[in-house]
Formats: sequence, structure tokens, C-alpha cells
Amino acid sequence: MTLKQIWQAAMLCVAMVSFEGYAMAEGKTAVDMVVHGRYVVTMDGAQDVIENGAVAVKDGAIVAVGTDADIASAYDAAESISGENRVLMPGFVNGHTHTAMVLFRGMADDLALMTWLQEYIFPMEGRYVDPAFIEVGSELACWEMIQGGTTSFVDMYFYPEVIAGVVDRCGLRAVIAAPMIDFPSPGFKGWDDSFAAGVKFVEDWQGKHARITPALAPHAPYTVSKEHLAQVAAKAKELGAPISIHIAEDKAELKTVGDKYGITSVELMQEVGMTDVTTVAAHVVWPTESDMKTLAASKVGAIHNPTSNLKTAAGIAPIPAMLAAGVKVGLGTDGAASNNDLDMWEELRLAALLHKGAGGDPTVVPARAALNMATKGGAEAVGLGEVTGSLEAGKRADMIQVSLDSLRLSPLYDVMSQLVYAAGARDVVTTIVDGKVLMADGKVLTVDKDALRAKVKAVADKIRADLDAKKQ
Amino acid sequence: MTLKQIWQAAMLCVAMVSFEGYAMAEGKTAVDMVVHGRYVVTMDGAQDVIENGAVAVKDGAIVAVGTDADIASAYDAAESISGENRVLMPGFVNGHTHTAMVLFRGMADDLALMTWLQEYIFPMEGRYVDPAFIEVGSELACWEMIQGGTTSFVDMYFYPEVIAGVVDRCGLRAVIAAPMIDFPSPGFKGWDDSFAAGVKFVEDWQGKHARITPALAPHAPYTVSKEHLAQVAAKAKELGAPISIHIAEDKAELKTVGDKYGITSVELMQEVGMTDVTTVAAHVVWPTESDMKTLAASKVGAIHNPTSNLKTAAGIAPIPAMLAAGVKVGLGTDGAASNNDLDMWEELRLAALLHKGAGGDPTVVPARAALNMATKGGAEAVGLGEVTGSLEAGKRADMIQVSLDSLRLSPLYDVMSQLVYAAGARDVVTTIVDGKVLMADGKVLTVDKDALRAKVKAVADKIRADLDAKKQ
Repeated sequence: MTLKQIWQAAMLCVAMVSFEGYAMAEGKTAVDMVVHGRYVVTMDGAQDVIENGAVAVKDGAIVAVGTDADIASAYDAAESISGENRVLMPGFVNGHTHTAMVLFRGMADDLALMTWLQEYIFPMEGRYVDPAFIEVGSELACWEMIQGGTTSFVDMYFYPEVIAGVVDRCGLRAVIAAPMIDFPSPGFKGWDDSFAAGVKFVEDWQGKHARITPALAPHAPYTVSKEHLAQVAAKAKELGAPISIHIAEDKAELKTVGDKYGITSVELMQEVGMTDVTTVAAHVVWPTESDMKTLAASKVGAIHNPTSNLKTAAGIAPIPAMLAAGVKVGLGTDGAASNNDLDMWEELRLAALLHKGAGGDPTVVPARAALNMATKGGAEAVGLGEVTGSLEAGKRADMIQVSLDSLRLSPLYDVMSQLVYAAGARDVVTTIVDGKVLMADGKVLTVDKDALRAKVKAVADKIRADLDAKKQ
Repeated sequence: MTLKQIWQAAMLCVAMVSFEGYAMAEGKTAVDMVVHGRYVVTMDGAQDVIENGAVAVKDGAIVAVGTDADIASAYDAAESISGENRVLMPGFVNGHTHTAMVLFRGMADDLALMTWLQEYIFPMEGRYVDPAFIEVGSELACWEMIQGGTTSFVDMYFYPEVIAGVVDRCGLRAVIAAPMIDFPSPGFKGWDDSFAAGVKFVEDWQGKHARITPALAPHAPYTVSKEHLAQVAAKAKELGAPISIHIAEDKAELKTVGDKYGITSVELMQEVGMTDVTTVAAHVVWPTESDMKTLAASKVGAIHNPTSNLKTAAGIAPIPAMLAAGVKVGLGTDGAASNNDLDMWEELRLAALLHKGAGGDPTVVPARAALNMATKGGAEAVGLGEVTGSLEAGKRADMIQVSLDSLRLSPLYDVMSQLVYAAGARDVVTTIVDGKVLMADGKVLTVDKDALRAKVKAVADKIRADLDAKKQ
């Protein structure tokens, strides 16, 4: 090595060291947003809670989760959201709802099932459900979900293409399932056209929108024949699309399926090939022990809807046994006609309370387990486990901030207990989906509230006049 | 009659007519306040709902309830509170709580009963409960209740004279029951001194304060001997004071009482003379059919605490059967250590939902029945039926306004359904007790929130340090 070579080598070293030093000081990774939390409830596998933590977001995805200091040392954010006295956590996954039914909220309560369905729900759906109704109802539902901290939902209602348009605009993430049923329903004469439209909906939307997953929704084993269920399962497998269906909701369903086929609803799912596809099975109130094993070994997620199951008197799902069996369990509100709102906080709390009292064991469904069903576990149950449900690098940035400002939330000894047993939708101040802020400081940014109010009033006035006429 | 006499008579007529006209125009009855409601949910016997109605208040009492037009034509109000898009209804009666336990909110959840009591509640009570703790805890509880629309409550906790001072200042109505127990407890060595102090508390406060009713609180049939229960019943009868006690809360209690006396807890109440006195029996989760008949024929009110009964796994009280049997049933939150808040809206909703699902009948405990338990029925169950619980002339003016502004509460088809199944504490904007406004436009006027926050923090920091040390 000549002197010149040594000199050149030395200069190269200096340059490299300088460049690295420069990069370390100035070249933090640029991200779009850092969101902070006094407590960051990650809901990752270990269910870590980070005090004074933050999440870095780029291109709608979570880049890193750590302490404020860790994130500050590694990332430069274009935008920062303060976490002072706030919990930062994943948004809720509402695993089962019928969004536009919010327009029937409180229309018919405390009635026997058949009176409710045949004198209220079915006639009113027949009379009012059209694309305009769905547009208004879905927008109201989305507003309510954003406001209450839900970031993803699984929907099953008429005119899914209209729902998809609303979801696109309002910014939520959704699995939107096209309804199929053997009987006439809004827009359809029966099975064939509802099935064809559902398939077309999936083909139209699949892979087209980052936040929307189209799906097929055969209504239930008592309203869709075995052959049609098999047809859906085959088509879902072919398309790679998920299914959403009501399963084992009440004893009447079990009897109908048992009388007709001599098996349980879950066994029917298995027989038609539905357990091999990502299937969101709503309710599952009455699984046998064998059904639970089948579900645990399948691609099916079960959605627990405690408020709806109580209100319609369907029963109390054996959630502790299902969790012990390894069934993927999520939480849902069901439609507002049997709830009467889309508040996942109430489901979270009720899920934590109900099974203790019903089963005589105060240790079952602890706060952490309930929170898991509403977030990570729920995302896994609806086939979005890779995408959302926890604050982990690589997942999409779907998260909420919960204010701890109210004296109702003091003292605070355990943040997860406080979230489950004392906090509520009113404490949510920020909702972010796919890295986009949908609600800031309690104000929903993607829905024109005044215009929505007027549209809701116009629909409701007509329905109310109808109900008043009925009463006379 | 001379012309002059005729003239005089005519003038007299004119004067009389004028005077009457003047009196009609100007001489309406003067009242202190008229409070309006878009809907006035009276909870009177007929459960009338008045659209565009109002309540006139004078000297803390309800003078009249009617339409806006009726009230305007008959009463002149010094103060008027707008009812635009608001429901006006009676405030809630929280039939069973332990107010200061809010300071233990979320301290120990999801635990087996004995772990919870012996490792957390009892040691922490022993270490922290003193008059200063009670002062802070009761103030936090009163703030929370005022904010959520509770106007009366039945309390059972240590240092009742301190609680009474807080209730006096914050403006709520309360039955404050002095705790008595056979074992050492904060401030007492055992039965004799706790009994003596309880009797003294009743003597000190009885008839002295318009909003405070002192009472005797033997803890439960498994912590107070039969002889001591009889002693309390006799003393309550002698003093004309009510009793508050835990009864038939869980199966373990039934077993203890059964093993010891060969009878049920309700039979024990009857045997010691407690059914002849106004007694607030908290829980009553496990009454026999015969117990229900006994209660129905007695002066005992049963308080249903659905959240607490689920959370502690006590069980599900047979509320539809109890109502059918004619038992006076009210609603309560229990203490925040087993809830974890004092939100009567959650109890209201849960009471309406739970028994439908547990009993398989969606028509039981309809919205109206749940609302009745939280208001008029609850007042009757705790011995305040003449005083509060409904909007009727002659009762004290204990009422709340619930805003219907949120889109969550639209559409509105049935106001009672909306209150039970969709509204919540966050919608309460006005709380009035004994004719005094305790909260206006969502702001509690009788508690210094910032000072309270600092006091709560000081207590909580000590408890948290203790809990952290325990974990290590």
C-alpha cells in the first residue's frame, strides 16, 4: 500500500464515519405521524402496556411502537398527536352488525320474536329499505362507530355496494357481506338473484379497495337451504372471499336444523364446506362441546353479541368454554334494532360481566380477555388478524385515543380494568383508521353531521307516521 | 234604584270584571321555577309521557305537571329552564351503594371472592378508611351521581356522619345507613360499639335534615348474629328508622344461614322482626317462591344490583318472578369496587336486558318496568315513595333533563325505549334535587371539581404505591 493509497483509505474512512454521524443526527426515519399515549395498550401477544409510549405511522401502516423516548430518537414525524392523559389502543372490531338498521333504533322493543319480526322488522324493511335508506342508515352507523372508537366492522345488510360507498367516504375498515336468502328480500325475488348479486358484489370490490373486503352472506341455516349453503361455500373458496352468517343463534334454529338434517348448525357448516373458508359466524349461542372443537380446528370465527342475545332472549353463549376450546371469538353489537346502538364499549363490559354471573365464577373473561375479543381476537375471528386489532409494526394504523380526564375514571390502578369496567364511548377522543384521522378531539371529521341529521329526520318522520298509524 | 245607584252598580260591575280580568292576567300563582321538557316522562301511576310539557316548582316541591300551555296559563316562574330537545324525568334512585368505595375503583377485579375480600378489600379498608378518606370518596361519588342523573341514594359505609356532611353540601337526597357488624371494622371493635354508634347517628340526624334519612345497617345475616339482627329490628321500630342490609346475595350466604338456623335469609328477616320495618334489602338474588310472597307482604324493598351480581358471580336475581309476586324492587349500583362506577343508566339497561336472555323471554322487564325500578318503584322500595321517584304534584322536585341532541339518539320512535336502550349518563344535562339545580348544562355546581381531583389523587397515589409494592 502506497502512502497515497493509505491516505485515500484514511480519507474514505473519515468520509464514511462523517456520513454515518450525519445520518444518525439528521437522518431519523421520516414518518407521517406519531401518536402518543400516557398508556399505550398494544394488545400484542404479550398484551404489553407501555407507559408514556407512542406509535409511528407511515403510509397508513404502523412502523414502530415504543416508549416516547425510543420513538423520538428514531423517527421524525410530520404530524404529532399528544397523548397527555390519554390511552392509545387499537380501535374496536365490531364483528357483526347490520349498519343501516340504526334507522329502526327503538322502533319495536320488548316484543316476542315473531311479533317483532313479522309485524315490525320485515314489513318495515319491505316498505323502506332501498339504496337511499341504506345510504343514510350506513352513514349514521359509521358516524356512531367512529365516535365510539370502532375502526373495523363486519356488515351484513341490503345493497352492500351502497354501504361500500359510505365506508369509502367515512374512512372505516369493513368486511361487507352481501345478503343471500331463499325468500324474497329488498331488491330480490329469492335465492338465485340474491346469490348472483352477492357474487357480482364480491367480484366488483375484491382487491379494489384497501379498507373494504367484500364477502358473501347466506343469512342463516334456517333461511338458506343446505344446497345453497354448499353453493356459497364453494364459491367463497373459489373467489377467496370470506363468508358471514348467523349460526346457532337460538334454540328454535337448532330445532329446525336438527329436524331437517339431524345435525347441529355447526355440523351443517362443516358438511357444506364452510369450515374450510374464513367464515364469520355470528352469535354461536348454542354450540355443543363437539361443535366447539370443530370451530377451534376450523377457519371460522365466532362473534359474541351479548346485548343482542339477551335482548332477543336467544340465550347466553358459553364464552369461557369456547375460549378454553380455542375457538376464535370476537365481539359484535348486532344491528341497532336489537341493541339499540353500535357501542362496542357496552359489549366489552357486558362480555366481561355476563359470564361471571351466569357461570358462577368471578375469574372468567377477565378484563384482558374481553379487550382481546374486542380488538386482536376479534380481528382474527373476522379474518383481519394480519391487518388490524393490535398496535404492532406491520399492521395498519387503526387506533383510538381514550381520554382519562373524567373524574369517573379516577382513581386509576389498572388501565385495562378501567377501560373495560369504567370507560365508555364518551371517553374516545381520537379515531384513526389506516393512518387517517377520522375523529379528532371528539369531532368526527368525515361525516357532515348537520346534513346527516336532516337526512335521518326525513326517513324517521315517515317511519314514525307509519308506526303512529299502526297504533291507532 | 236611582240613576245614581244604577250608575254605581254598573261601575261596581265594571270594576269587578276588570279586577277579575286583571287578576287573571297578572295573578297567576307565583312559583320558583318551571322546568320544561320536549317529553316529560312523569313515571306517575299511568306512566304518562307529556309532549312539550313542564313542571312547576315552589319551595322545593312539585306544584304542577302539565303541558307547557297549561303550566304557562297558571304559573308565573322566577326561573325557567328550557326543555328544547330534552327529556324531563325523575332522577334515579340508587337503592344500594357504598359511596366512598369509588376510591377502590378498579383496584382488584376478576378475582375469586375470598381473594378479593381478604387480600384487597378488607386490608385496604383497614389501612385507608378514616374520616378523611370517606370525605373524599363520598364527594367523588356524589359528583359522579349528580353528573349521571342520580338524585337519591341509599348508602352503607363507614363514618356515616361524614357522608351526611358531604350529602348536605352536594345537594343530593340520601338514606344513610350506619354500618354494624359482629367483627372489628374501621372505627369499631365489634358489635356493641358499632351498634351504639349507629343508634347515635340515627338519633343525631333523624328529622333534622330535609334530604337526609338516617338508617341502621346490620351488614348481612352471615356477619351479624340472629340476636343482633333482632336487636336492630326492635331499635329501628322504636326509632321509626329504616334498615339497610345485604340479603340472599349468594349461595354461600344461603348455606351459612341454612346451616346455622335451618331457614332462608328472608325467613330470618321475618323471624327477627325485620319485615315489619322499612328495610332496604340489597341483592336478594336467591329468594325462594315463599320468600317472594313474604317480601311482597312486608315493608321490605329488594334492590337489584345486576352489574355487581354478575361481576362477583353472585348470580342472576329472579326479577320477573319477584315483580310478578308484587315485591317492591328497586335498582342499585352497589359500591364501585364491584361495578366499577355509579352509573344507574348501565343498571337500567342491564336490568332490561339480562332477564330476557337468562329466562328466554324477550317480553319480560320491558323498558317501562326497568325505568320504574330506577325511579318510582325504586323510591318505594327504599321508603321514599311519598317523597321522590316520579313527577307528581306534592312530591319533592327531584328531576333530570336528558338531552336528545346526539345522533346516537336518533331516530326517536319511543322515548322510554330510547332512555333505556340507547341513552346514557353522558346525555344528562340538568340535575335538580329538592328544587335546587345541582347540575346545569352538564356542569356540576355543588362540587369543586379541581379541588376534588387533587384530593382523589393524593389518596390514590398512596393506595397505588401499596398495590405496586404488593405486586413486587
